[in-house]
Amino acid sequence: MRAEIISVGTEILLGQITDTNAVELGKAFALCGIDHTHRQTVGDNLDRLADALKLALSRADIVVTIGGLGPTEDDMTRDGIAAALDDPLIEDPEVVEHLKAIFERRRFPWLESQRRQAMRPSCARIIDNPNGTAPGLVCLKDGKVVIAMPGPRVEFVPMLENHVQPHLSNLGGGQTIVSRTLRIIGIGESIVEDKLHDLMTASDPTVAPYAKTGEVHIRLTTKASSREEGLTKLLPVETEARSRLGNFIYGVEDETLESVVVDLLRRRNATLATAESCTGGWLSQRITSVPGSSDVYLGGVVSYSNEVKKSLLGVKQETLDKFGAVSEECAIEMAMGVRKATGSTFGVSITGVAGPGGGTDEKPVGTVFIALATPFAVEVHQLSYPGIRETVRLRSTQSALMYLRLLLLIGVNANT
Amino acid sequence: MRAEIISVGTEILLGQITDTNAVELGKAFALCGIDHTHRQTVGDNLDRLADALKLALSRADIVVTIGGLGPTEDDMTRDGIAAALDDPLIEDPEVVEHLKAIFERRRFPWLESQRRQAMRPSCARIIDNPNGTAPGLVCLKDGKVVIAMPGPRVEFVPMLENHVQPHLSNLGGGQTIVSRTLRIIGIGESIVEDKLHDLMTASDPTVAPYAKTGEVHIRLTTKASSREEGLTKLLPVETEARSRLGNFIYGVEDETLESVVVDLLRRRNATLATAESCTGGWLSQRITSVPGSSDVYLGGVVSYSNEVKKSLLGVKQETLDKFGAVSEECAIEMAMGVRKATGSTFGVSITGVAGPGGGTDEKPVGTVFIALATPFAVEVHQLSYPGIRETVRLRSTQSALMYLRLLLLIGVNANT
Repeated sequence: MRAEIISVGTEILLGQITDTNAVELGKAFALCGIDHTHRQTVGDNLDRLADALKLALSRADIVVTIGGLGPTEDDMTRDGIAAALDDPLIEDPEVVEHLKAIFERRRFPWLESQRRQAMRPSCARIIDNPNGTAPGLVCLKDGKVVIAMPGPRVEFVPMLENHVQPHLSNLGGGQTIVSRTLRIIGIGESIVEDKLHDLMTASDPTVAPYAKTGEVHIRLTTKASSREEGLTKLLPVETEARSRLGNFIYGVEDETLESVVVDLLRRRNATLATAESCTGGWLSQRITSVPGSSDVYLGGVVSYSNEVKKSLLGVKQETLDKFGAVSEECAIEMAMGVRKATGSTFGVSITGVAGPGGGTDEKPVGTVFIALATPFAVEVHQLSYPGIRETVRLRSTQSALMYLRLLLLIGVNANT
Repeated sequence: MRAEIISVGTEILLGQITDTNAVELGKAFALCGIDHTHRQTVGDNLDRLADALKLALSRADIVVTIGGLGPTEDDMTRDGIAAALDDPLIEDPEVVEHLKAIFERRRFPWLESQRRQAMRPSCARIIDNPNGTAPGLVCLKDGKVVIAMPGPRVEFVPMLENHVQPHLSNLGGGQTIVSRTLRIIGIGESIVEDKLHDLMTASDPTVAPYAKTGEVHIRLTTKASSREEGLTKLLPVETEARSRLGNFIYGVEDETLESVVVDLLRRRNATLATAESCTGGWLSQRITSVPGSSDVYLGGVVSYSNEVKKSLLGVKQETLDKFGAVSEECAIEMAMGVRKATGSTFGVSITGVAGPGGGTDEKPVGTVFIALATPFAVEVHQLSYPGIRETVRLRSTQSALMYLRLLLLIGVNANT
């Protein structure tokens, strides 16, 4: 079974966007044990797209197109597939009804041009797209499969996971690639490599590190005839890695640091509140990105100005005068203040100089203080990050979550 | 003059790496005014690579390969080019000497296998690669140009900037592509297309829409002999687009909606505070991502729990009992409350059901209320977003910024 990707879009050729959808789809082929020997990228041009499809159909069993399914005139993937398969386009009445319902719900006037998105080759069936207007298509003709997927990432990724990957898995039948990601915080990539050196030189399972902002991932990968068999092969390597890295491994697969913290809070029956200055709400944004975080997260204060630090968090004027807003003392008062204001079990605060302005000799850009207030005590950490405003802010939230996790682990380990 | 990229490497097809080299090269073609209609990606297979090269040479004047120039047996780009051009491979004695010198400098024993990297089609000349071992190649035959570049990013990028881009610029005849992006909020892609239909069917300048989450970009593009000449050609089209889209255009190029809002606040000498429920601090995170936002942004409250809505924002228990936390009434009290608590000119609030849980028949997932409190009045909007938690949250912050901008525009237009 052999597959080919055709990415459609002049903006990809011009280098205006990076084709990460094709990367995800390539991984999906590998996971499903489907060979994948070519990829083509074409601009928004009907003849070129139809030619690319014909070429792909001449050498592959499955062709997946990405993009060009929108309502505008340069969205011509439907037409290209119809031409390549020599199958007429028909309007799908159910899709028209569905599109009209979306417009009604959004209180937008209906546009006849939307009907383009309801067209499909007569041999096609529809893939639902709950995150956009254009549905996906699965076309079966002369023993070949053509799948058309939308380009916007928020539409593409769920459709891949929920519809296309299961379908590919059926088509693939045989071997599958199984991998597992361990997520590490608190030590850098070179230390991880040093500790796992011998595992990384082995050929099966393979062990590879990936450096991310403020954390490191290691991916264990093997081939097997089933996911279960693969996971069984990976287990001893994971056990060995865990014995060497211990608590530095905070999660696996898609678990985020914020979801681990929310889970630990839930297991402790504890609640959290946040007080943020330089991160401006990014920490609370990350925590509330976790579904169900309202069980443990009460809320927070973004105390960007000194007035708000005083009025909503009870930071003392004297503290601001003597030590400044970016100080150990201010961080402590912010964390204690938000704990008191909300009645939460824990309060966490961040104050720092994110840049590009505001740095001094004593407290240069990248200087950040993080405090954690508990029912019994308060701890504070001083950090110094290199990099631009965005990096300083992101890494500050990352460190705050890391310290919270360590604090919460102590209690959970003692209780379980 | 037309060009085509061939990216070589099984690891690209498997989704193990993202092909950012092709993105850079696509930008270089555009900058040099060279048309670029296709890209191919093939694995490490000699026959497939030779076929891809022949196909590319049949439709392009310039073909650039990326990757497959290393010393190992699966590096076969040199062989592929020799096969496609029907030109024998010869060993380049200068390259052999150069490689031996590198090995001596690094105190590595010489390996005869390294001689692969000194092979080149007889028609080729060498491009120096100071950042690696394999040189690049420029092959000229039958009026076609084939350029071979190494895949590692530290080798690719300098070779592109220092050698290939100047060469492409010569080939392109000194032409350059100039583009300008107009950023639109408040109307969808199909309405934009409807309003600009005739401009979008013109061939020079081209006008193309791109749908983003909660906004639309249109890109105007033309070819010219200089950036200034190009911008002059784009100006009348931009003027026409502005006359049709008016205030729906909020910015150009890389200007973000949050930076436009911060700028408008500064021009009005006004301050802002935020009260967020379902977005959990994302709105404040976006505003504070703008350097210098502390001039106008005082801070905010993330009122995730009802208790915090009451204690920090003064939302009435009666309001929560009668209308619920996701209601017009609660949104209004949140916006007025945060304005009062911080003393800001404007207060903006967001409360809604982000999902996946928490939806009801009356207020399904995606229902969001946004209120804006001013010194004189308060306005409130009810919205309904499709999609997952992340989309609902992001689009809520987008709409809040949009309403803020409209509110602020009135004042600025009156004052200027």
